[in-house]
Amino acid sequence: MTTSSSRTRLSPAARRAQLLDLGARLFATRSVEEISIDVLAEEAGVSRGLLYHYFGSKQDFREAVIRHAVEDLVTQTAPPAEGEPLERLLASLGVYVDYVLANLTLYRSLVRAAAGGSDELRALYEEGRAALTDRIFREDAQGQILTDNPQTRLMVRGWSAMTEELVLAWADDPTVMTREQLLEMLAMSLPALVDLA
Amino acid sequence: MTTSSSRTRLSPAARRAQLLDLGARLFATRSVEEISIDVLAEEAGVSRGLLYHYFGSKQDFREAVIRHAVEDLVTQTAPPAEGEPLERLLASLGVYVDYVLANLTLYRSLVRAAAGGSDELRALYEEGRAALTDRIFREDAQGQILTDNPQTRLMVRGWSAMTEELVLAWADDPTVMTREQLLEMLAMSLPALVDLA
Repeated sequence: MTTSSSRTRLSPAARRAQLLDLGARLFATRSVEEISIDVLAEEAGVSRGLLYHYFGSKQDFREAVIRHAVEDLVTQTAPPAEGEPLERLLASLGVYVDYVLANLTLYRSLVRAAAGGSDELRALYEEGRAALTDRIFREDAQGQILTDNPQTRLMVRGWSAMTEELVLAWADDPTVMTREQLLEMLAMSLPALVDLA
Repeated sequence: MTTSSSRTRLSPAARRAQLLDLGARLFATRSVEEISIDVLAEEAGVSRGLLYHYFGSKQDFREAVIRHAVEDLVTQTAPPAEGEPLERLLASLGVYVDYVLANLTLYRSLVRAAAGGSDELRALYEEGRAALTDRIFREDAQGQILTDNPQTRLMVRGWSAMTEELVLAWADDPTVMTREQLLEMLAMSLPALVDLA
C-alpha cells in the first residue's frame, strides 16, 4: 500500500524515469532488438496503455531505453573529482569495464546496431562516445595527459575504438589477464598513443 | 576480335577470377548492398546467364566479390621480404591505407555490414582480420616487435580496431595529418602498445 501510494505521488517525469530505470535493468541482458513495451509490461506488471502513454510508440520506447542507458553510462563513469589525471582515468575506466560486463548483451548489440545501419541508434551511440571523449579533454584541462588539437582528437578516437574492442574481447575470455591488468593497460595506452600523435 | 578469342580460351576458373577482378573494380565505389549481378552485367556487357552460371545466385555473387576483395587486400598488404620489422610494417600499412582510400565506400560498408548482423559478411571480415593479424606474428617470428602470447594477441586485436577507426576517420578529413604522419603513428603504436601488455 505504501509503495502504491508513493508511486501515485510521483510526477510524470519521475514516473517516466523510474520506468526507464526498470527498463535498463530488465534489458541489460537482452539485445537492442528485444527491447519492447510488451516485455516491460509483462515483467514489471505495468499496463501497456500506461507505457504507450509515456513513450508514444514501440520505437520511441526502444530509443528512450537506450538513451537512458547511454546517459547512465556517461554519468556513472564520471571520474572522481580529486587525484592525478591517470588515477582518475583509471577509476573511470574501471566503472566503464564493470558497466560493460553488467550490460554485456545490450552493450554489444548496441555497438552492432550502431555500426550496422540504424541511423537513430548510431546517433545515440555517437553521442555517448562524444560525451566520453569530450570529457577526457575537459577533465585534463591543464593538458597533463593530452593537448587538445585535431591530431590528439583523432588519436583519442582511435583509443576509444581500441578500448571498446579490448573490453568486449576480454569479456569473452577474462582469463587472458586480470581486470586490473586490463585497466592499467588501457589507462597507460592513452598517454603512450598521444605521445605518438 | 583478339580480346574475344583470348577470352574464350580462358579456363572457367580464370574466367571467374577475371569477372571477380572486374567486379572488385566496379564495386569499390559502391556499398556491399549494391553489389549485384545485374550491375556487373550491364556495366561490363557480360550476359546475366553467364554470371549466374559462374556464381550461382545473387547472394553467392556478392559473397564472392567481397571474398575476392578481402583476399586481394591481404595479398596486396604483404610486407616486403627484406628490411627491419618496423619498416616492413610501415610498408604494409601504407598499402593498407591506399587500399582503404581506393575502396572506401565498399570497405566502410563492409565494416558496417560485418558489425551489423550479417553472419556471412562478419565471417568474411573476421577471416580477413585474422589473416592480417596472424601475419604480424608470423612476419615477426623472432619477436623483435612482439612476443606471441594471449596478452599480446589481445592487444594486437585492439590495435587493429584502432587502426581501422583511425584510417576511416582520417579518410573523412585528411587535413588533420599527412599520410606519412598517420602511417608512422600507426606503426609506432604497435610496439608501444605491446610494451604495455
